[in-house]
Amino acid sequence: MLISKLGEFGLITRLKRRIKLDSSVVKGIGDDCAVLRFTKDKYQLFTCDMLVEGIDFKTKTDPYLIGRKALAVSMSDIAACGGIPKHYLVALGIPKSTSVKFIDRFFSGMKNLARKNNINFVGGDISKSGVLTIDLSMLGEVEKKNLVLRSNANPDDIIFVTGSIGGSIHGKHLKFCPRIKEARLLVKNFKINSMIDISDGLTQDLSHILKTSKKGAIIYEELIPLSSQAGSLKEALNSGEDFELLFTMAPKEAKRLISKKMEIFSPIGKIVDGKYGMILVNKKGGVRKEEIKGFRHF
Amino acid sequence: MLISKLGEFGLITRLKRRIKLDSSVVKGIGDDCAVLRFTKDKYQLFTCDMLVEGIDFKTKTDPYLIGRKALAVSMSDIAACGGIPKHYLVALGIPKSTSVKFIDRFFSGMKNLARKNNINFVGGDISKSGVLTIDLSMLGEVEKKNLVLRSNANPDDIIFVTGSIGGSIHGKHLKFCPRIKEARLLVKNFKINSMIDISDGLTQDLSHILKTSKKGAIIYEELIPLSSQAGSLKEALNSGEDFELLFTMAPKEAKRLISKKMEIFSPIGKIVDGKYGMILVNKKGGVRKEEIKGFRHF
Repeated sequence: MLISKLGEFGLITRLKRRIKLDSSVVKGIGDDCAVLRFTKDKYQLFTCDMLVEGIDFKTKTDPYLIGRKALAVSMSDIAACGGIPKHYLVALGIPKSTSVKFIDRFFSGMKNLARKNNINFVGGDISKSGVLTIDLSMLGEVEKKNLVLRSNANPDDIIFVTGSIGGSIHGKHLKFCPRIKEARLLVKNFKINSMIDISDGLTQDLSHILKTSKKGAIIYEELIPLSSQAGSLKEALNSGEDFELLFTMAPKEAKRLISKKMEIFSPIGKIVDGKYGMILVNKKGGVRKEEIKGFRHF
Repeated sequence: MLISKLGEFGLITRLKRRIKLDSSVVKGIGDDCAVLRFTKDKYQLFTCDMLVEGIDFKTKTDPYLIGRKALAVSMSDIAACGGIPKHYLVALGIPKSTSVKFIDRFFSGMKNLARKNNINFVGGDISKSGVLTIDLSMLGEVEKKNLVLRSNANPDDIIFVTGSIGGSIHGKHLKFCPRIKEARLLVKNFKINSMIDISDGLTQDLSHILKTSKKGAIIYEELIPLSSQAGSLKEALNSGEDFELLFTMAPKEAKRLISKKMEIFSPIGKIVDGKYGMILVNKKGGVRKEEIKGFRHF
């Protein structure tokens, strides 16, 4: 069997089998970050993201934006766990024909975003490679009481997203602001039950919350804050790289959040019993069932 | 200017410029691992290594050995700082045509070595890629008093290597045992002044110690423990991927180590004032000066 048939999530499920972890691991494979014991009051977050030329960016993409994106994607993972990014390493596979100017711009984009967020660039590795390949690994921290995972959504929780959804391919995927500030505002002032960042598309990432929490969801399509760049609602639901946060909280907490009238947080639906699956309700009250996805093609 | 002209170490020097680190970083770019504040008595070690098909292994290499090597290389970095490996993430760029069987064997090799060393596999990332590309990032720990860097070699220090040197390309680079046990024996029982793992070749890696410590060295060629696979002394001195440890300690400590008669540790020379550079002495007493290398081609 080819790996393309198993799919990314099939492979991840396969990898989780027969892994023995010691008690220093709070959460291993299967969330936005690994969660590790750290200090008395804090956990450490550990994540990595690989970007490959031709897949995650084009050969002609401004290297400043590639470097920026490489850092931002991992920051988004840390945000999804409610944490603060602290340190990063960069492993770089570089074609021989790369210019020093290109690499300088790449690191400018990365280092500028890091500096603004007080993240330490502490090391890395450099290899020859056919196409530019970047793997950024990042450490972060989160107060134990503020850690949010994908797995604790409860029935009646209200589902929110930050910002707007869809059309990221037209530019936002290279320029998005990882939602660190918003995540910190949330975890410090509200009880967030589950959270994920939208990297694979809203329905796909909501599926991850529903699967790990063993719940269902009702989404009201007209509540989804569509980006002006989004081609259609369908595209917005399924296209990836929004890097917005998707989170759930109890109705009472949700009411409190909504009362703050912060435009950046939009309620889009609610969590229900697992037996309902994922239900999308359109403007006219029409209902359709969305598959809870556990597959992504290579 | 092309990156191939600047070289790997030129690029690293360039990257270190204008980096601002906060006080949680004990050692950033430029050693085997980044060293971070952790607990009252311990530092955390953070490292990553990228392996690319066609460069670090062949397309036909047994995937079990590729997976094993990906983990072992990072373990070797942790060993070089005197530490114990704890957790790892794997970022994997996979060609679409890869078989599930290949990936299963790859992870078997990695997970078996991890299990034997109680290292937790805690997450990762998967991407499409033209050739198999692996970046493994690892966290480790070391007692503050046992941390060893490259930068503290002193004049008169005796220089040692573990195991044997050269010919790794004939197989050892895929099957080596990272010198965790030996490193721990050393740091717990002796005062080690500087240490590095030999990944780029003995003279290249000794150069790193000499440059960061601002010292010179005299190496006695006949003392170098040549591997039976080594083609010649010259090849052994310059070929990479031995993944042995190169370390220095004061004469008194060295005497104590030598008195233990452990075959695995071989004294090969001594540290001298920086003005002498690196001097190689052959069997007949002939002397030649080796360039202190700060360049590696892409």
